[in-house]
Amino acid sequence: MHVVVNAAMSADGKLSTREREQIAISGPDDFERVDSLRADSDAVMVGVGTVLADDPSLTVDSATRIEARTDQGKPPQPARIVADSSLRTPLDARILDDAAETILLVSDAVADSRVSALEDDGVTVVTAGDGRVDLRAAFAELEAMGLDQVMVEGGGELIFSLFEADLLDELSVFVGSVVIGGRDAPTLADGDGFVADFSRLELRTVERLDDGVLLRYDVQ
Amino acid sequence: MHVVVNAAMSADGKLSTREREQIAISGPDDFERVDSLRADSDAVMVGVGTVLADDPSLTVDSATRIEARTDQGKPPQPARIVADSSLRTPLDARILDDAAETILLVSDAVADSRVSALEDDGVTVVTAGDGRVDLRAAFAELEAMGLDQVMVEGGGELIFSLFEADLLDELSVFVGSVVIGGRDAPTLADGDGFVADFSRLELRTVERLDDGVLLRYDVQ
Repeated sequence: MHVVVNAAMSADGKLSTREREQIAISGPDDFERVDSLRADSDAVMVGVGTVLADDPSLTVDSATRIEARTDQGKPPQPARIVADSSLRTPLDARILDDAAETILLVSDAVADSRVSALEDDGVTVVTAGDGRVDLRAAFAELEAMGLDQVMVEGGGELIFSLFEADLLDELSVFVGSVVIGGRDAPTLADGDGFVADFSRLELRTVERLDDGVLLRYDVQ
Repeated sequence: MHVVVNAAMSADGKLSTREREQIAISGPDDFERVDSLRADSDAVMVGVGTVLADDPSLTVDSATRIEARTDQGKPPQPARIVADSSLRTPLDARILDDAAETILLVSDAVADSRVSALEDDGVTVVTAGDGRVDLRAAFAELEAMGLDQVMVEGGGELIFSLFEADLLDELSVFVGSVVIGGRDAPTLADGDGFVADFSRLELRTVERLDDGVLLRYDVQ
């Protein structure tokens, strides 16, 4: 399975304000790039914090790209994956709508009855990990389900966990020409952070886009 | 007065680990660039948090550059400025050594006797602000002292305060090919952060350097 993180951050590394309010960091060219990346993916993944803060749909926008997917025998939309250890995704979240398949990764702390109710509603639930999702085990299961290209869109807690679990292949980050600031504002990689054995990257391409710059890395 | 922030951050916007331990983010080419920038400055500034965490000397390293300064009738080293509202700089800090002039910006919460003792030791003390340094007033005083080019090297608290006070002209940030992570790790711009009226930048140049990329912005 090939796992790519794609995110937009301010010039000071923030994904949103301290109030978790998303602001326009990128522009129309980056929007098109992200839509194209989604269309090329088998699944688009976020952490539950992002679902709670932004209620994203994570769907491909372009009708042409959706058509190209169905022409290739794929579902019109990539699946949506939420890492959600204790099942905090609200039942009316956009990510649970009928626009695409949805896969929730939960820990075994979640009651079987809640899992069954979701499965009855057509949601795929992958249970892995004791209290917290075991991402390595969950990813092995996703791979076994036939997912090949996975795009991770945030937030910083999930992205750090994926770096920590050594599950990432690529990082694409659009650096916008704005400063958000804030010691409590979400950053590209939050979690506890490394104090040794940092994740090393290899800078592959640097491209000016909109009013910022797109940095693409291989994760070593 | 022309004020430039120069800093190195990880690909996720961190200046150091959550334990405030500096790690090698840039390389030899960036080190030379920073040394040259220091040599071109009248003063190099940090916040007291950086003094406490790193005990930097902030001096120019290259003998050639030091000689070039004296040939131009300048002091061998740029002055060092510390924003230190409640005078926490330790008396044995490197920044107080004889290698260069030192200017401390303090608030009026600092006792006159402590200010006098430092002045007797040859330290210049600028008092401005009630409990917290009023950076706008202090910068006006620095300008009146004849300082023209000021380089700010961090940390994130000072950098955010300078963005907030609208005192910056340029931002140069080296983005290293490493992920540090950590919701509590210092970032390029900490403080309370903006929730509106974000600081807008204009991306001037993008340059690959060492194993990372140097982004240079004008602050709007």
